[in-house]
Amino acid sequence: MPDLDSTALDAADPLASFRDRFVIPDPGLVYLDGNSLGRPPLAALERLARVATEEWGGELIRGWDHWLEAPRRVGDLLGTELLGARPDEVAICDSTTVDFYRLASAALEARPGRRFIVTDRANFPTDRYVLEGLARDRDREMAWLDPDPIEGPTTAEIAEVLEQHADDVALVTLSHVNYRSAAIADLPGITALAHAAGALVLWDLSHSAGAIPVELAAANVDLAVGCTYKYLNGGPGAPAYLYIRADLQAQLRNPIQGWFGQADQFEMGQGFRPQPGIAGWLTGTPGILGLAAAEEGIRLSAEAGIERIRAKGVALTEYAIALHDAHLAPLGFELGSPRDAARRGAHVSIRRADARELTRRMIAAGIVPDFRAPDSIRLGLSPLTTTFGEVHRAIERIAELAAG
Amino acid sequence: MPDLDSTALDAADPLASFRDRFVIPDPGLVYLDGNSLGRPPLAALERLARVATEEWGGELIRGWDHWLEAPRRVGDLLGTELLGARPDEVAICDSTTVDFYRLASAALEARPGRRFIVTDRANFPTDRYVLEGLARDRDREMAWLDPDPIEGPTTAEIAEVLEQHADDVALVTLSHVNYRSAAIADLPGITALAHAAGALVLWDLSHSAGAIPVELAAANVDLAVGCTYKYLNGGPGAPAYLYIRADLQAQLRNPIQGWFGQADQFEMGQGFRPQPGIAGWLTGTPGILGLAAAEEGIRLSAEAGIERIRAKGVALTEYAIALHDAHLAPLGFELGSPRDAARRGAHVSIRRADARELTRRMIAAGIVPDFRAPDSIRLGLSPLTTTFGEVHRAIERIAELAAG
Repeated sequence: MPDLDSTALDAADPLASFRDRFVIPDPGLVYLDGNSLGRPPLAALERLARVATEEWGGELIRGWDHWLEAPRRVGDLLGTELLGARPDEVAICDSTTVDFYRLASAALEARPGRRFIVTDRANFPTDRYVLEGLARDRDREMAWLDPDPIEGPTTAEIAEVLEQHADDVALVTLSHVNYRSAAIADLPGITALAHAAGALVLWDLSHSAGAIPVELAAANVDLAVGCTYKYLNGGPGAPAYLYIRADLQAQLRNPIQGWFGQADQFEMGQGFRPQPGIAGWLTGTPGILGLAAAEEGIRLSAEAGIERIRAKGVALTEYAIALHDAHLAPLGFELGSPRDAARRGAHVSIRRADARELTRRMIAAGIVPDFRAPDSIRLGLSPLTTTFGEVHRAIERIAELAAG
Repeated sequence: MPDLDSTALDAADPLASFRDRFVIPDPGLVYLDGNSLGRPPLAALERLARVATEEWGGELIRGWDHWLEAPRRVGDLLGTELLGARPDEVAICDSTTVDFYRLASAALEARPGRRFIVTDRANFPTDRYVLEGLARDRDREMAWLDPDPIEGPTTAEIAEVLEQHADDVALVTLSHVNYRSAAIADLPGITALAHAAGALVLWDLSHSAGAIPVELAAANVDLAVGCTYKYLNGGPGAPAYLYIRADLQAQLRNPIQGWFGQADQFEMGQGFRPQPGIAGWLTGTPGILGLAAAEEGIRLSAEAGIERIRAKGVALTEYAIALHDAHLAPLGFELGSPRDAARRGAHVSIRRADARELTRRMIAAGIVPDFRAPDSIRLGLSPLTTTFGEVHRAIERIAELAAG
């Protein structure tokens, strides 16, 4: 299999040096699952040791003098550098599931007369499960989209469902980048359509943040959530984030009124009175170890810059698709991601009936992708750590395994 | 001020050697706030480094092969060793606030025809705020107890409120140990009363777990939550735990249906079907760094044994109260905790009008307690790390500062 220039591509990569800022104990392992769990930044390891020893051990309870600010400080870094949000619109806290629940619940409460929740069958499972629970508990109904599994929901499909339930849709919620196909939804277009129909929108940015530009403020997005453990390299189960547009922060109500959202928290008085701004949406005590590690991951993406990250993500996925077309399509593989780079995030799905077994054999051979039922091998191409050489080696190895 | 035998007490302390298993960078600092944030176990630091480097860095996504079990594994350790629960009744996940919300919400759903939620005005703020939000959102009403601020709610007071709202109380929820006074509530007695009245009970164990024995199964408790960052030494914002008695796990419904509670999670299929057992109550992705540190803290308490921990907690608080009576009462202090050791957890509150300012001066002098508005200085006496010598030094210093 010819090289297709992976060496030249790596040599010309302006982000190449970022790989040296991560812990990579086994450079021979081709890791193509940074879209499930990104690699650890060296700075995160140093930071964890420092936080545990100097802060937890040395400052003890006095650490809260600065830990209290951390959910907002890191939220602002992420929001302003990588999500196109304004300051004080993003906080890091809880899990994506819990944040998604809180915002979806608040959105339904803000649209009491409207019956329907719009999402798609191919949306990430936790979002679907949470919505089904909320529909049941809040006496609402799901309006499911069933879009093309590769291209994802179009604005025409959204317009149609909004028309079908005219004046009766409370919430439209989708993933910005689909976890399986990597299709990018038309975030500004769908947001505008939802607003025109009187609905609120809630975007799940888990597979887009740190991979492609997100322009929350420019698109006037209402609500968003996402995780920090994928492209943002925050660590296993790293804390999630929520975004609430400034004007909605006091309009909507947090269903989980916790003490970290309380004004004058340590007075411990009677009656919940939320802090102003995004701080009013904090709930319980934030996990400081996880948050510290996540900050280092986010900082690296911010330093690299989302435009350069996006350019490399396009180059990596274009390269993987070219190799797929040349070497895997003849073996019966089909592409499970959009061909148009403008419509694709930083991962590529390839499909074949034996994908589950093939994934097992790939992992045994030192190539780590992710399997997604029933027939997809997902190749996550993390712009800060994945090399073109790794993509080449992976496709070469898949071809060997699939042909053998 | 005479020594009152602190040297002899420390020499006879069977748990004395546990102090060496913790990070104590400044042995001159008298830390009396382990009931807000316990000190770091040395094992937690080692474990964090290993998890970050070998697991997150080396195993990468494959770490989930064992991380998936961690919330239940650590939950079982905590539940069976320290909470008197049966296996598969406790999981470590989310924050106390989120877990409290989920269980209180599920309890209200399970008692649809009943209007009242019973708790007390002196309960921990996050519990009160969450309940107020739930009462509003689920159209219920708070039935507030206003018990003696030192002794806490009595069974007679509970019986009275249950009588007053006969057949109309859905949920009784209290702290097992009051965060301010350290009063121990009669957990078995109140649980039995609530059950006799047809209500569910939800206990907050944050200030009792790892300090006094908790007998959840023996008392037939329905639901409980708590944090791991106090006496359990889990780290700042360490993940919380929830307990659900086995027979209730499938009867009640988790309002936040997340993918970690889903059977066949990675099939990512349509429709939420909870896993059997406590696993069906997991929600979003658990933070693995925080969980790993918490496991080490919990393990140390389990190793020390709750009976020995309790015995030392009683001895430490008795000693502090004897010193208070001898040296602080004459300076205008009053005890803010029960005098009966059987009714008191492992902290002691002392009260004086200038407590806020005095706390500031104590911290400047290297004695770290906690202030609780309006007039309490809370001395947390962590059986695994606090020495009798420290208690002696602290009271001596408080007397100097208060007299000065």
